[in-house]
Amino acid sequence: MERKRIAIVGVGLIGGSLAIRLHEKKISSRLIGVDVNEQHLEKALELELVDEVLPMNEAIANADVVVLAIPVDKLVLLLPSIMDKIDRQIVIDLGSTKAQLINSIKDHPKRGRYVATHPMWGTEYSGPQAAVRGAYENKAVIICNPQDSDKDALEWTKAMYKKIGMHLLEMEGNAHDLHAAYVSHISHITSFALANTVLEKEKEEQAIFEMASAGFESTVRLAKSNPAMWVPIFMQNKENVLDVLTEHIAQLTKFKESIEKGDGRLLQQLIEEANQIRRIIR
Amino acid sequence: MERKRIAIVGVGLIGGSLAIRLHEKKISSRLIGVDVNEQHLEKALELELVDEVLPMNEAIANADVVVLAIPVDKLVLLLPSIMDKIDRQIVIDLGSTKAQLINSIKDHPKRGRYVATHPMWGTEYSGPQAAVRGAYENKAVIICNPQDSDKDALEWTKAMYKKIGMHLLEMEGNAHDLHAAYVSHISHITSFALANTVLEKEKEEQAIFEMASAGFESTVRLAKSNPAMWVPIFMQNKENVLDVLTEHIAQLTKFKESIEKGDGRLLQQLIEEANQIRRIIR
Repeated sequence: MERKRIAIVGVGLIGGSLAIRLHEKKISSRLIGVDVNEQHLEKALELELVDEVLPMNEAIANADVVVLAIPVDKLVLLLPSIMDKIDRQIVIDLGSTKAQLINSIKDHPKRGRYVATHPMWGTEYSGPQAAVRGAYENKAVIICNPQDSDKDALEWTKAMYKKIGMHLLEMEGNAHDLHAAYVSHISHITSFALANTVLEKEKEEQAIFEMASAGFESTVRLAKSNPAMWVPIFMQNKENVLDVLTEHIAQLTKFKESIEKGDGRLLQQLIEEANQIRRIIR
Repeated sequence: MERKRIAIVGVGLIGGSLAIRLHEKKISSRLIGVDVNEQHLEKALELELVDEVLPMNEAIANADVVVLAIPVDKLVLLLPSIMDKIDRQIVIDLGSTKAQLINSIKDHPKRGRYVATHPMWGTEYSGPQAAVRGAYENKAVIICNPQDSDKDALEWTKAMYKKIGMHLLEMEGNAHDLHAAYVSHISHITSFALANTVLEKEKEEQAIFEMASAGFESTVRLAKSNPAMWVPIFMQNKENVLDVLTEHIAQLTKFKESIEKGDGRLLQQLIEEANQIRRIIR
């Protein structure tokens, strides 16, 4: 594919890791960093994540593609004004919630230039120094409401994601937000709550530190995730997240009751049901 | 250390993986498998996890060390009768709960021959075919109530665990069970409950399968764990597990309420508190 000048708005974990990949795969002819955080810009230059940094308007004017990798509350505020400023540029966002954002520009005259995406990749770290090589590979990317994007914008976006090793799924924004609540948002809430449980009740931190085994680390790892990213996700996906969270608390309560009653048969049955997750994950 | 004849009672994931390691590290001169499950015995021989299989009494008579790697409900039933049968053998158990088991033989005339241990290693799989090379390495092993074991039995057990690459911690059985509830048992309950939440509510399994990213997989992985192992653990550690589980539900409810009220500041604060888990895990 022809190389393009790409502006990355938000040079943190998500944007920075994408920048590395766009260069590696020879997708970009120039990478322009934009960020409200001056220290992040300096770090992004120092780490050579981007070729240069520019203010938003100049970055847009000098780019063929504008990639938005900022928290979803900032996305909703910023996207309409970016759409006002573009001409033929393609605008792609990488946010973890989609319905509200898509809705915010649904009647915009340049709607077709925008492609709503959610690459299902991340780590529990944040900032440009958290950017890593090899990100996104072999993960899914969801393209939302593809019928509302211009053909060229959609095709370029799909080709870009394929070239960095992702497999494409298409769905409507509402369906995306529902599924994301199950496969991503609830995992983060349980992990945050598990961390708080342990920190609240277990006063012998040295014991945890020494005893913590793979099981604990893998369930609590996500609790290190950045609130600036996750608060807006939970707020924007409020209904779905509450729905899943209510069910999760009900399921935990079943475990609690079976243990309280000493009902080993019920507990066995609950665990056997949970084992069925093997159908879905290897 | 001088090689010993070692009987492994329970040739599944835990016992089988230990058998591989005992041979690798030249700790055993002979490995004898004991199991109530005939198919597991056949598989253990086929995979060469053990040199021979024998009925319990013969295995004990022909061993210097008896290692018990069976579910904790079976341990409580079996340990007293094994203590009746031994002479100078060392008896070691690898169970995930300790207080009840230690209590079951506390007045046994041969109490000193027994060493209560909990190596903090496992996977979500089970049976002899789940046994893996390199298990236990760089993990912690808890030795409980070491003062109640004979010096030679204790020293041999510690040397064995060191040789397979584990770091030793000593604590009383009650303290162990409390800490284990935090760093292991609660992670399994949240994972089981998370699996049930998703299986109950998310009918589009294909979407989960395709979208499931690292975050989801790491939190739900433990839900594949074997009920025969985990039901007895939760039942034996009932008080501690209920205590932690009650707190965990309370913490999840705080997240739920902050999202319901749209209270971003509270949600931010809850996540920032959870981020403090960085103090404890890398």
